[in-house]
Amino acid sequence: MTDLPVTYADLAIAAQRLAGQANLTPVMTSRTVDQLTSAEVFFKCENFQRTGSFKFRGAFNALAQLSEAEKQRGVLTYSSGNHAQAIALAGHLLGIATTVIMPQDAPAVKRTATAGYGATIIPYDRNQTTREQLAATIAQTQGLTIIPPYDYGPVVAGQGTATKELLEAVGALDWLLVGCGGGGLLAGAAIAAKTLAPHCRVVGVEPSRADDATRSFYTKTLQTVTNPDTIADGARTPSLGKITFPIVLHLVDEMVTVSEAEIMAALFFLWQRLKLVVEPTGALATAALLHHKIPRMQGRIGVIISGGNVDLPAILALIPRESSSEIST
Amino acid sequence: MTDLPVTYADLAIAAQRLAGQANLTPVMTSRTVDQLTSAEVFFKCENFQRTGSFKFRGAFNALAQLSEAEKQRGVLTYSSGNHAQAIALAGHLLGIATTVIMPQDAPAVKRTATAGYGATIIPYDRNQTTREQLAATIAQTQGLTIIPPYDYGPVVAGQGTATKELLEAVGALDWLLVGCGGGGLLAGAAIAAKTLAPHCRVVGVEPSRADDATRSFYTKTLQTVTNPDTIADGARTPSLGKITFPIVLHLVDEMVTVSEAEIMAALFFLWQRLKLVVEPTGALATAALLHHKIPRMQGRIGVIISGGNVDLPAILALIPRESSSEIST
Repeated sequence: MTDLPVTYADLAIAAQRLAGQANLTPVMTSRTVDQLTSAEVFFKCENFQRTGSFKFRGAFNALAQLSEAEKQRGVLTYSSGNHAQAIALAGHLLGIATTVIMPQDAPAVKRTATAGYGATIIPYDRNQTTREQLAATIAQTQGLTIIPPYDYGPVVAGQGTATKELLEAVGALDWLLVGCGGGGLLAGAAIAAKTLAPHCRVVGVEPSRADDATRSFYTKTLQTVTNPDTIADGARTPSLGKITFPIVLHLVDEMVTVSEAEIMAALFFLWQRLKLVVEPTGALATAALLHHKIPRMQGRIGVIISGGNVDLPAILALIPRESSSEIST
Repeated sequence: MTDLPVTYADLAIAAQRLAGQANLTPVMTSRTVDQLTSAEVFFKCENFQRTGSFKFRGAFNALAQLSEAEKQRGVLTYSSGNHAQAIALAGHLLGIATTVIMPQDAPAVKRTATAGYGATIIPYDRNQTTREQLAATIAQTQGLTIIPPYDYGPVVAGQGTATKELLEAVGALDWLLVGCGGGGLLAGAAIAAKTLAPHCRVVGVEPSRADDATRSFYTKTLQTVTNPDTIADGARTPSLGKITFPIVLHLVDEMVTVSEAEIMAALFFLWQRLKLVVEPTGALATAALLHHKIPRMQGRIGVIISGGNVDLPAILALIPRESSSEIST
C-alpha cells in the first residue's frame, strides 16, 4: 500500500483539517433493512454533509493544503454538480476566491447554489470546447490552481474521511459498499477500510449503463464510457483517473453494477422507509445491497449514502404511480 | 401540575418501558437554519421513529401498561393514520392482538402498512356510522380495550418521552415548538419541558384551517372544527380531548397557526435543505419557526419533527415547478 499515490497518513491529516468544518454525519440503522438482508447494516449518511454530499470533504481538504501564495491567487474547477458547490463553500470558508466552469445549460438551481456560496461561474458551450481545455487556458491566464473533482490526492484523502468516521463510529465491518463515479470516494473508502478494518471487503457499485470502472477493474486496463445515459449523474464520469485507478485496482475487492430500475427502487426505499432524501447517485450502494448483488454478503455491512442533492420536480417525473417498494423481501 | 391527569412521573415510567423498543431518534442541527433564525435550533427527528412517527411511543406505552387479562383479550383503535400503524406494531411486539377500525376509503398504502404489522382491519363507511360508535360496539362485543389516538393518559405520557429525550440530549432550551392535532404530543412535550427546563416556553402550532386548539387555548373553552381541509392530515382532529385540553391550557405558553402555503414551504425546505423526508403534519413546528410566527423568539429553540409518512406520488404532485425555497432570508 505504501507505493500508492494516497495513503492512510494523508487521510489522517485530512481528518484533522476537517475537524469542526465538515459535519460528523450520522450513521443510521434500520430494523427493516436488517430483516431484508439478514445482516447488520450501517448507513453513513453523507447526504447530511455540508453542501449535501461527501464532496465537501475533498474540496475543503484540497483547498486547505494549498500554499499561501496559491490561496491568494485562487482556484478553479470544472463541475456542474456537487463538487462545484463543495469548492465554492470551502473557498468561502477559507477566504479563497473560487471560479467554476459550468456548462451553460446546467440547471439553474445548481448554478444558483454554487454562486450563492460566492463562486464566480464561467459558462461554456459543450459543443465548442471541452471543460478541461478551457480550464487549462483560464488557469494559466489567471494564475489559478485547478482542483479536479476526483483525480487529485488531497481530494481522495478528504473523501476517505467519511469511511474513517464510519469505522470509528461502529467498529470493524465485514463489507463496505461504495458508489463509484470517478472513484474518489471509493478509493478513499478503500484506503480507510484496509487500514482500520483489514478484513473488510470493499465493493464498488456502478450503474450498469456507466460500467467503465467495473470493466477497468476486471480487465486491469483503464476503460471509458462516453456520456452514459444514467439517472445517477454523479457516475457519468468517463473513467477512473490516474490516481484513483491504481488505488481501486489494489484495494477494492469487487465491483458490481446496478440497473436504472434498481437505483430508483433503492432511492424510493430510502425515501419512504428510512425517511432519507437521497440523490440517485447516493443510492447506488443501497441498490447493490437491497438487490442482493453479492449473495454471500452477510455480517456487518457498511453502506455509504453519498449525497442528497435532488431537484424535487425532476424526481417527481420518475416516480411510479404505485410507489410501494419494489424491494423483494 | 400535580392535579393534572398526566404527570412527569408517568413520562419517566413510559421512558423505561420504551427503552430498547422505541428508537432514540437523532437530533439534527443546520447552520442554514441557525443563520435564517439567528438562533440555535435543534430538530428532534421523530420521522426516524419506528413506524415513521412519534405515535409509536404512546401506542407502545399504552399497550405495555395493560393488565395481563386485557392483553390477552386484545385492543381496538380507530385511526387511518400513524396511530393505527403504531398500535399494530406495538401489539405485534408485545404479543397483543390488535384491531383497527379504518374508513373503507383509507389509502391502500396505509391499510397495507397496518395490516403488514399484523392488525385486523375493520373497514367502515363514514356516511353510515361514526368510528367512535362502531368502536364502542365492537369493543364491548369482543371484550377489547380501546386505545384512543390521543385522549388517553398512557398515550400522552409516551409521546412526552420525545421531548424528554431531546432535553436530555441537548440540555435546557429557551423555546420548544410542537405541532398540535388532538394535543397528545403537545401535552406530553409540555409536561417534559416544564419539568426538565422550567424556563422553556412551549408553543403549540396548528394549521390555520384547523385552529380549534388555538381558539380553545385563548378562550379557555373547548372549541371544535369539522373535517378541516388541511394538508396536515394529523391535525384534522375535531378538538383537544378531556385529558389533553387541561394540560395544554395549564402548561403551554402560546399557540400559533400557520397557513397551508407555510406548511408546504417548510416541508420542502426540510426535504431540500435538511434532506429529511417529513410529512405535512410533521412540518408544522418548522413552519412556525421559519415564518417567524413569534418574532421575539431567540436563543436555543427545540423543534419537534413529528413524522415522515408521506405518499410520495401524492406529495410530489404538490411541488411547485420552480422548487427553490420560499423561505425568506
